[in-house]
Amino acid sequence: MTGIDDLPIRDELRGKSPYGAPQLEVPVRLNTNENPYPLPEPLVARIAERVTEAARNLNRYPDRDAVELRTELARYLSRTAGLEVGVAQVWAANGSNEVLQQLLQTFGGPGRTAIGFEPSYSMHALISRGTGTGWISGPRNADFTIDVDAARKAIAEHRPDVVFITSPNNPTGTAVAAETVLALYEAAQAARAEAAGALVVVDEAYGEFSHRPSLLPLIEGRPRLVLSRTMSKAFGAAGLRLGYLAADPAVVDAVQLVRLPYHLSAVTQATALAALEHTDTLLGYVEALKAERDRLVRELRTLGCEVTDSDANFVQFGRFEDAHTAWQGLLDRGVLVRDNGVPGRLRVTAGTPAENDAFLDAVRELMKEKNA
Amino acid sequence: MTGIDDLPIRDELRGKSPYGAPQLEVPVRLNTNENPYPLPEPLVARIAERVTEAARNLNRYPDRDAVELRTELARYLSRTAGLEVGVAQVWAANGSNEVLQQLLQTFGGPGRTAIGFEPSYSMHALISRGTGTGWISGPRNADFTIDVDAARKAIAEHRPDVVFITSPNNPTGTAVAAETVLALYEAAQAARAEAAGALVVVDEAYGEFSHRPSLLPLIEGRPRLVLSRTMSKAFGAAGLRLGYLAADPAVVDAVQLVRLPYHLSAVTQATALAALEHTDTLLGYVEALKAERDRLVRELRTLGCEVTDSDANFVQFGRFEDAHTAWQGLLDRGVLVRDNGVPGRLRVTAGTPAENDAFLDAVRELMKEKNA
Repeated sequence: MTGIDDLPIRDELRGKSPYGAPQLEVPVRLNTNENPYPLPEPLVARIAERVTEAARNLNRYPDRDAVELRTELARYLSRTAGLEVGVAQVWAANGSNEVLQQLLQTFGGPGRTAIGFEPSYSMHALISRGTGTGWISGPRNADFTIDVDAARKAIAEHRPDVVFITSPNNPTGTAVAAETVLALYEAAQAARAEAAGALVVVDEAYGEFSHRPSLLPLIEGRPRLVLSRTMSKAFGAAGLRLGYLAADPAVVDAVQLVRLPYHLSAVTQATALAALEHTDTLLGYVEALKAERDRLVRELRTLGCEVTDSDANFVQFGRFEDAHTAWQGLLDRGVLVRDNGVPGRLRVTAGTPAENDAFLDAVRELMKEKNA
Repeated sequence: MTGIDDLPIRDELRGKSPYGAPQLEVPVRLNTNENPYPLPEPLVARIAERVTEAARNLNRYPDRDAVELRTELARYLSRTAGLEVGVAQVWAANGSNEVLQQLLQTFGGPGRTAIGFEPSYSMHALISRGTGTGWISGPRNADFTIDVDAARKAIAEHRPDVVFITSPNNPTGTAVAAETVLALYEAAQAARAEAAGALVVVDEAYGEFSHRPSLLPLIEGRPRLVLSRTMSKAFGAAGLRLGYLAADPAVVDAVQLVRLPYHLSAVTQATALAALEHTDTLLGYVEALKAERDRLVRELRTLGCEVTDSDANFVQFGRFEDAHTAWQGLLDRGVLVRDNGVPGRLRVTAGTPAENDAFLDAVRELMKEKNA
């Protein structure tokens, strides 16, 4: 039988495993930061309508530039994120992963490097590897915020072509202050002043859940600053795979050079448009989840856990002598959370009140054992 | 205002344009090889049903491995392409473009090269560029078939990591003989005998329209041979963006290392599954299109055109002193065809009988002018 190693795959892929959380059948699944609320039935009906319309024309290629969808995404950002943005400033793809891949193909790639401040969203490093971009792991403070001085130093030393800032950070949960983004943006431009500067990508996948306003307004007057977003979390549409970016129109023009033509299917565009019609309802769920998230933080602290400040729909908690053992202890009690490899910490997604209660009960038992 | 050139994009992208046919509003559009037959209404209804079901679970990530869809694609291939294939041998992505991109990220990339025999599907070269893979342009005979000896020589000389064979070839239309594929496969392995061999990708995007049987059976016992397919043409679903490959299970395992997790949305999977339930009806349209394609070839030859043998849903015809002038002449008569840059030749998609009549009338006028 032929195995991967008998094939001429790239050397740097040898011995690696595919990315992805274990998919286990468990009563309470709080491991992948999914929104626990199914789409409301009127929206499901509207999706069926929109998709039916799209299906009648499915023999034709979809709108290559997804103009209607980008227009509605721009309208949504203008309404909610504190800056008037136009269709020319917005680009969409199959999940923010594909958005990031397109950015790295354009601004990273062979002979270039990207930096991120770890622990952070591990796909940044993986997509860098997948696009041949060298990866630099930057530092964080002990409380998981970005250490601005150390980050500036790392940028000056490595002169990366792309800088990733995740806000709120995943898996730790805390949002990044605007001043931090500005400091790193300036440092990145200064480090590559003799070239055309560096691209700074603010990954706001969990932006809607933050106590802080969106960092979107920072793109104004900063053509090398990109804000990336997704409909997976706030719009309760992880199954839809719709990510987008907002930036200077020149960035949108630039990713056209590497995007696969017709990358975004007509059914994806139709479904996303339907969801955007129901923004108000979906943002109502976000408010409910924020309240549950705050409750999780409070109650975990009451239980004696160390909890990282959260602006997301998930909470990092600990500290455990061995995170994996604690993870297994919760799993044994029917609750699946995520071990992201941060020493002594686990990450739990804010679920429904009932799911969160089940999780808190399981932690209570675990802490009792620990202190017994 | 910031332009692309003010941004730190990769040098090899500077001055390039995005790929894509001009999208013009014209009565008869025969330029992008779309299937002219809309999906039948019962299938549209089934898509709505399947998508409704998927939408009720859209807050969850889709099946990351698309097992149900790959099972049905395997069943379809087993039924129609002359080899029993299993789910472990099939992989699917957003259009065959994404399949090819994943293959190049795994088997090509920086420091590696890919060869294609041109003119051929121009995305092979573009996706190679996008993944940092060096591109080698191999030769063809004057009749646009592959020159086996010259191809073998080019492979021995350049030792490419990836070899593309397009059958039927796009934009020229002719299918490739199995012996040719075998000769190039052997040459590619021999050229890289001291490494783990080379990957040979047979792009059968138009396979269902061919007079010849599928090349799929060749994958048996050849773990470095990959067959790529799409639902865009034969399934009349260009808007769906569903491409897939069949190969040794080790190849499917290998692309997992670079695929973006959850790359295929739940609505795309649901829509593709609905279409696969209606395979028989859709293959009926393929038969009708093959008959129209054969008519186009015959009538164009009667009109005095030089026509390349076609196994696809399009026909390459000429010879014009200036292909672009001829293209404009047809456009002036309300018929949009494609100028793929092959000197003296144009490509026309087989449309409905009425569309093809309109096209033939326009060519008749053009030829009269030419001979006047």
